[in-house]
Amino acid sequence: MYVAASGPGLANGLANLHNAWRAHTPIVNIVGQHAREHLHFDTPLKSDIEGIARPYADWLRTSSDSVALGRDAAEAMATARALPGGIATLIVPADVAWGDGGVVAEAPELRAARATDGRAVTRAAAMLRSRVPTCLLLSGNALVGIGLAAAGRIAAATGAKLLAPYPFARMERGGGAPVVERIPYIFEQAAGLLKEFRQMILVGAEVPRSYFAHPVKESVPVAAGCEVFTLASPGEDYASALIALAAELGLREGATDSRGALADSGSRRVERPGTPRGAISIAGLAVAVGAVLPDDAIVVDESMTSGRGLMEATARVGPHDWLANTGGSIGIAMPLAVGAAVACPERRVLCLSADGSGMYTMQALWTMAREGLNVTVVVYANRVYGVLKREFSGLGIGEPGEKALSMFEIGRPDLDWVSLARGMGVPGTRAESLEEFVTALRAGFTGAGPSLIQVDL
Amino acid sequence: MYVAASGPGLANGLANLHNAWRAHTPIVNIVGQHAREHLHFDTPLKSDIEGIARPYADWLRTSSDSVALGRDAAEAMATARALPGGIATLIVPADVAWGDGGVVAEAPELRAARATDGRAVTRAAAMLRSRVPTCLLLSGNALVGIGLAAAGRIAAATGAKLLAPYPFARMERGGGAPVVERIPYIFEQAAGLLKEFRQMILVGAEVPRSYFAHPVKESVPVAAGCEVFTLASPGEDYASALIALAAELGLREGATDSRGALADSGSRRVERPGTPRGAISIAGLAVAVGAVLPDDAIVVDESMTSGRGLMEATARVGPHDWLANTGGSIGIAMPLAVGAAVACPERRVLCLSADGSGMYTMQALWTMAREGLNVTVVVYANRVYGVLKREFSGLGIGEPGEKALSMFEIGRPDLDWVSLARGMGVPGTRAESLEEFVTALRAGFTGAGPSLIQVDL
Repeated sequence: MYVAASGPGLANGLANLHNAWRAHTPIVNIVGQHAREHLHFDTPLKSDIEGIARPYADWLRTSSDSVALGRDAAEAMATARALPGGIATLIVPADVAWGDGGVVAEAPELRAARATDGRAVTRAAAMLRSRVPTCLLLSGNALVGIGLAAAGRIAAATGAKLLAPYPFARMERGGGAPVVERIPYIFEQAAGLLKEFRQMILVGAEVPRSYFAHPVKESVPVAAGCEVFTLASPGEDYASALIALAAELGLREGATDSRGALADSGSRRVERPGTPRGAISIAGLAVAVGAVLPDDAIVVDESMTSGRGLMEATARVGPHDWLANTGGSIGIAMPLAVGAAVACPERRVLCLSADGSGMYTMQALWTMAREGLNVTVVVYANRVYGVLKREFSGLGIGEPGEKALSMFEIGRPDLDWVSLARGMGVPGTRAESLEEFVTALRAGFTGAGPSLIQVDL
Repeated sequence: MYVAASGPGLANGLANLHNAWRAHTPIVNIVGQHAREHLHFDTPLKSDIEGIARPYADWLRTSSDSVALGRDAAEAMATARALPGGIATLIVPADVAWGDGGVVAEAPELRAARATDGRAVTRAAAMLRSRVPTCLLLSGNALVGIGLAAAGRIAAATGAKLLAPYPFARMERGGGAPVVERIPYIFEQAAGLLKEFRQMILVGAEVPRSYFAHPVKESVPVAAGCEVFTLASPGEDYASALIALAAELGLREGATDSRGALADSGSRRVERPGTPRGAISIAGLAVAVGAVLPDDAIVVDESMTSGRGLMEATARVGPHDWLANTGGSIGIAMPLAVGAAVACPERRVLCLSADGSGMYTMQALWTMAREGLNVTVVVYANRVYGVLKREFSGLGIGEPGEKALSMFEIGRPDLDWVSLARGMGVPGTRAESLEEFVTALRAGFTGAGPSLIQVDL
């Protein structure tokens, strides 16, 4: 639940509401508005709240009176929670909030997800039986729990590969869960991964495309001639579709959660890399995370260009959840880590943030300190907006000039994240070797409250 | 000019665009959009940019092709600059930006401001001649240059009092400029100031109202029976209206800038308070600013509840400009100081920020360091959102409970602004007495680049 005061308060959260909206995160968004009488006047905070909210609202209402408020709130909650999940924004004028006559409403029934067409299930099963190289591209609840378990059984039985879009919301991993490979951000790498497949079955996902168009480059990394088939589209229950598909393939009912899936097929195992040593490197940092990630951790990943190898190094460690930036609006890591830690106080949260992204919302460090949240924040300080630099090079307009380069770089002066953290009450350290990084991670995972580790790249 | 990448980039600036929109600040807002072809696909950063921009756009267009782009940009600039000033948002799809055929357009003529009705001028002159206690409530260009000079001549000749709304955008002050009193934020104080007036003449301003409505309290601090008359309304040239009013009153053509106004009437003088000594206090801090403010400084004031007495203590010092938060969306001080320092590199900028407000946008400190801007930032660390606490008490629902109080407070842990500044490359100091504050201010005003002073209240 996000609570904002007035239009500007809503505006302050809007960039991450974009991410939540893309991720189909269920959010009830309550926005205060002036008392209706006061809206006749041209006061400073008057604004078109419905206008500001509309681009990121799946449901939008201004509550009309105190009696209706309870019913409106219940409807907002039910709408937000119905699959695939969405943002319900309820605007509450001050006089509606302070007025008499409020009634606690019954929670309405959740809108049921659309059932997947039986013919689509039959067709997908036929594709999988054909033994043509096939991938399943998973999204939403196909990446967790019983949905992922069913996908794992299908993959084990048919040889199909499980993939996730680069911008997925949440994935259950480790502890024997089926391994799902993320399609890389970089177009050439995505095309390289996808070139072997002649069939792609979409389970809640869209056809993969590059984030940005380019004047000359392709934007679809799927191989030419690959048949793309939609098993389940947004608004359907992807997990049910996968379970139906497994049944259609004659696979016995298996695990009721993702981590039983490979156990069923006898291949359950945890492989944890050894702790790395030596100088800081992107590869070494990834291995270090894999070496010491605690069981049941929640990893929030906005490591951007510094995150190469992280998902590979953690694919077979203990059970954990991986949260990514679904909407591409950078600055999600620290606030999302706050949300994860508040929701799951018994779990450890590892927040992996690029320095450029972290600068958008570093105020969340103070919230971590205030609430005593068990979050270990890693800031990858490469002092550059690497994605911008790469996208520029993709435009085919030559090398960036001095001014363009200056806009991509974050140095001059270099950010001192240890000082920034200290300023907000979070103890911080700078790791200057992989040994120091491992030690700091372990301290973070066992200590109480938040900590921050800066690694310079 | 604000340049944003995609919808979320625009969203990141939206809360301060609210302030700029309320202030009628001329802004050309260029927002990048995906190439049109790419918009057919459901990619992560796809968003309804026009929807996000609309609530704060006085002019809004998505450029349709490369040939039209130059003309669109010229029209955006002319629209933004026409009185009273506004926000022109131009959305540029990537293919329009990289396409061929661009043409540099002629700048179109600025739309002329509506002339003030001659009968309104006659009526206002009659009101002023009546010698009934009268105030002129000034806004926009009535608070600077020839507009303020004319207002000063009128006030000197008729005894009318010059007032500004609490949320004004910019005011020329000091160096003999006419003294304009700001209507206080606190309703009871505003009503106290206004109770003597039987006539109020609005020059671009609206009838004063409280920021927020309350269930029981009044929202208009104007005395009952006070006649309110609009000389010039938004879209007119307030300065011209005041010059016409001065002429109607038979006042000779005087100074061509505000600071000549009192010189004309023989009362030009600068009165600078002596440097205060002793323990930190709100009153002492205000006097210290008055004692050492350099000539031609730009003061950005978001001191909120810690700013009592600041404008009084600086009313008759050397010439300076005062910029306030017109829209009530807190977090304007540091970014606005960046803008002022970039626009006027030869002037010193004093940025007065409450700690709660400063937390919204403290990233601007890094920009100050990077650009070597001569900004002296004062952070008033009272560790509370004092306005929220006050507005709560105005609701008449008793004392706040523990949870409500916790939402108003900024302590636990206390913010260390000196560490935060150091983290972004800005040297900082904590002033523990008025002597230390004066020394730190002087060092800030004479040194190169930014500095920060934390004062604990």
